[in-house]
Amino acid sequence: MYEFKGYRNPVLVSSTDSVGTKVKIAIALDRYDTVGIDIVNHCVNDIFTCGASPIFFLDYIGIGKLIPEKAEAIVRGLAGACRETNCVLIGGETAEMSDLYHGKDFDLAGFIVGVVEKDEIITGKKISAGDAILGLSSSGLHTNGYTLARRIFGETKKALSKRYHELDKPIGEVLLEPHRSYHNLLKPHLSLVKGMAHITGGGFPDNVPRILPEGLTARFKSRAWEVPPVFQLIQRLGDVSRDEMYHVFNMGIGIVVVCSPENVNRIAREIPEIRVIGEVTRQKKGEARVTID
Amino acid sequence: MYEFKGYRNPVLVSSTDSVGTKVKIAIALDRYDTVGIDIVNHCVNDIFTCGASPIFFLDYIGIGKLIPEKAEAIVRGLAGACRETNCVLIGGETAEMSDLYHGKDFDLAGFIVGVVEKDEIITGKKISAGDAILGLSSSGLHTNGYTLARRIFGETKKALSKRYHELDKPIGEVLLEPHRSYHNLLKPHLSLVKGMAHITGGGFPDNVPRILPEGLTARFKSRAWEVPPVFQLIQRLGDVSRDEMYHVFNMGIGIVVVCSPENVNRIAREIPEIRVIGEVTRQKKGEARVTID
Repeated sequence: MYEFKGYRNPVLVSSTDSVGTKVKIAIALDRYDTVGIDIVNHCVNDIFTCGASPIFFLDYIGIGKLIPEKAEAIVRGLAGACRETNCVLIGGETAEMSDLYHGKDFDLAGFIVGVVEKDEIITGKKISAGDAILGLSSSGLHTNGYTLARRIFGETKKALSKRYHELDKPIGEVLLEPHRSYHNLLKPHLSLVKGMAHITGGGFPDNVPRILPEGLTARFKSRAWEVPPVFQLIQRLGDVSRDEMYHVFNMGIGIVVVCSPENVNRIAREIPEIRVIGEVTRQKKGEARVTID
Repeated sequence: MYEFKGYRNPVLVSSTDSVGTKVKIAIALDRYDTVGIDIVNHCVNDIFTCGASPIFFLDYIGIGKLIPEKAEAIVRGLAGACRETNCVLIGGETAEMSDLYHGKDFDLAGFIVGVVEKDEIITGKKISAGDAILGLSSSGLHTNGYTLARRIFGETKKALSKRYHELDKPIGEVLLEPHRSYHNLLKPHLSLVKGMAHITGGGFPDNVPRILPEGLTARFKSRAWEVPPVFQLIQRLGDVSRDEMYHVFNMGIGIVVVCSPENVNRIAREIPEIRVIGEVTRQKKGEARVTID
């Protein structure tokens, strides 16, 4: 139960998602304390794109056989990530179904509810040609692209222990890096923000158009940031096209922020790590809504 | 997004659950339009026990391979059940993960948010010795006991097509009967109600004590209602003890309602099908919190 008070014109915003097959990496490495962080932060970012701050979260675990230490580790991750954004881990359900989940398999989904004042909702409607596109770095693959990544790197403990010279730790650890939350960093500066897109499955091309008004194109300058080594490695080992890479992965940018050009310096002063990675232009005839130069 | 207005001291109540292995029956019978009703009504009843009415619902489907017609049938069930209780089906996620869900397997979880005015929360705190226990009939197994039921009846299409003389339709159809919602029937009469327990996994013994103040026992009179044939059949075919039956199944009572004895007639006049199935007594030394005479 959550007593709801102190708002003027509150709008509730909710979302659900799962960790996807990132759980397979956790299972292979026998590490269960990070996937909870992943699902909370994924959900937090999803509702944050419209300006909402989380109020409570519930988890759903479907599992073949419940091992208490593993469940505790998952919940530790959930609880820690919830604490970070002042979100109450209000409940959850663990369903033990050995006829549905085989061996060590499990699925982890999350449900979040947040709130935003009606007059502070960020929709992207005010975005116009000339606006700047800023980006914040991701912490890795976040929770997308694991079907492809697992095909390339394998998913045995041995395969995931491999050290590639491009990476500073074993590939399994790089893949398990938890999804980063952007809420606390950006929340104080939302009055300067016109639109935000959480870069999840579908990458820039699928996630950015959702906030772009008709007739505009988001032009990304890929040289404006360094694509992290793990994505370069995936592209090389898997012989994946550049186009597919940008459709499947975040390529190092976890959230895209659009603001008017005169606010870029103010935001950059407050958040030194943020960088300009593109701009909004009028959409030319036949041009895609997202281009990556 | 859900604009939240018109409440005095609103308390948000939320819950998450899954259909459990009832999905296995749906898969065997290739019928996907009922499990959505199950999960919505399960969640609706769960939050309704404290007096909350649903405001919105989200679903999560984990599945090996998405078949559009099956997904549509599931969503049709969800949407219909949501409409019944004036609940908005606000979103959902379908995750296709063939490495986690094999063959036609899928998992279906739901997440509900409801609201209750703070001074109208039903907690059970006012329940006292002498109060009446009323019950409303379930529509079948609801969403509990399917691991045991499937062991007894099997889960092939052939096994589930079998007609037992005790039942008026094939066992598969009886098992697939959707979970009943008690919200609309009971909602207008909540001012007369001291406590409600949704009879899910764990039956009377696990669900009723949650609302009973310390020092009280809920005494059920099993002759006050007829245990539906499907439960008798399960008990006979599976050679299941009476005790286990009452721990695993709802035994024909989907929700338990506690009220003071002077209100029984008023409630019964409004809801003719409700019946007195027990009473609350002082707990004797060494006595269980729930007894079934």
